[in-house]
Amino acid sequence: VRCASAVEVADAIRAMVVRGAPAIGIAAAYGLALAALRGDDLAEAERALAASRPTAVNLPWALARMRDDPTPERSRELHEGEVERCRRMAAHAVELFEPGTRALTHCNAGGLATGGYGSAVGALRAAAERGLLERVLVDETRPLLQGARLTAWELEQAAIPHAVIADSAAGSLMARGEVDLVVTGADRIAANGDTANKIGTYSLAVLDARPRDARRLGDPDRGTRPVRADRSLPGPQSRLRRDPGCADHRDRHRGRHPPAAL
Amino acid sequence: VRCASAVEVADAIRAMVVRGAPAIGIAAAYGLALAALRGDDLAEAERALAASRPTAVNLPWALARMRDDPTPERSRELHEGEVERCRRMAAHAVELFEPGTRALTHCNAGGLATGGYGSAVGALRAAAERGLLERVLVDETRPLLQGARLTAWELEQAAIPHAVIADSAAGSLMARGEVDLVVTGADRIAANGDTANKIGTYSLAVLDARPRDARRLGDPDRGTRPVRADRSLPGPQSRLRRDPGCADHRDRHRGRHPPAAL
Repeated sequence: VRCASAVEVADAIRAMVVRGAPAIGIAAAYGLALAALRGDDLAEAERALAASRPTAVNLPWALARMRDDPTPERSRELHEGEVERCRRMAAHAVELFEPGTRALTHCNAGGLATGGYGSAVGALRAAAERGLLERVLVDETRPLLQGARLTAWELEQAAIPHAVIADSAAGSLMARGEVDLVVTGADRIAANGDTANKIGTYSLAVLDARPRDARRLGDPDRGTRPVRADRSLPGPQSRLRRDPGCADHRDRHRGRHPPAAL
Repeated sequence: VRCASAVEVADAIRAMVVRGAPAIGIAAAYGLALAALRGDDLAEAERALAASRPTAVNLPWALARMRDDPTPERSRELHEGEVERCRRMAAHAVELFEPGTRALTHCNAGGLATGGYGSAVGALRAAAERGLLERVLVDETRPLLQGARLTAWELEQAAIPHAVIADSAAGSLMARGEVDLVVTGADRIAANGDTANKIGTYSLAVLDARPRDARRLGDPDRGTRPVRADRSLPGPQSRLRRDPGCADHRDRHRGRHPPAAL
């Protein structure tokens, strides 16, 4: 996909050719640099880009950072900063992995969503590099199948053993003790730590709180961990990106996909 | 679909043209009556039918009841008995509904699965007849989409308001208090009350145990009900059909669908 103007970038975001909040922010930054190079009206270009996906918080964030210096250099800086943050998040998250970890992930929080390396998939990559990762179960992820279509492809590229499963199979596999760790991205993290992510993440958080692998633990009660009903999983981003403008999960209204996307 | 021999009935069961344990049992009974009318080898017909879906317990049950009287009358009797049991289960289950109930169901446990009326869908029909049912959320149900393809059609025929949702959306909708009751069938119920059903039912049972509609209840903790990790939902069949040959959920190995069915 080649975009030759800010409007084309905005169209690509709207059509979800570019998706994933960090990737959207990066694309918008490049879009604004493109408008500046072409001598287009920058205020108009910014409006078009900002309207392309109103729920992606990285979008106004990136556009604001481009305002005083709408150059290709600045957009590349933002891009590199995003990838660097993914690497730092992965370095944090890899501490959660033990040798032989069998992980599960939902949707796509990989390089395709973040401009490179990935947040949740970055954590999986880092764990695989250290020999801690046995395999990954990849939720298909309804709607749009971004797990089956994007994450599975990324893991294939990274030579990480994985299997795509139907979203509804995750609970049963977790109950059978076949999942040690659930790693997902977080679209947004409220000031109180509540996180929001693609539909289905909340279910995984609840299911993960059930006793896991009771046989291995010996005591059926030991595996139970309290999880607040209103919280999603703490994703690898949670230590780095709290949103002070968003008090808790009720503040954030997820964009719903149209029925046709099912 | 017309079947002219026991082998054709067995093929229809194997290809899932006929599915749902009760419907499989009924079809096999008619298949054996067909073999007797044609003067075919009855032992061979029974073997072919029994092998068509080894995990459906109603299949050997129905075949055993046909052995001493392989007539069309006997198979019709079994069919009518099955529908009658659905009506009795629905009469029991309707007690769980209150006025304005917003229900959720998974997979298909309707007339198409049971030879008429339906077990879980029967309960929904009975509730709708008494004016207790506001609407039904229908899980698409992976694999094979039997919720979206069969249950939605049945509810449409019965003029019951409903909406098909992605399986992974159920948890989030339940957390928002949009589901008062989950009603599913049960493929099999062990002697201790453990139930087994289509993949995804276990997740609904766990999610249903989270505090529901905390605002309405006033006290966030009041909605919490303990649910054993190894149990699925008590379906409407649970009072009527315990399987003494199956001690608990570990005894029963669900037929897994091949990857292509996803």
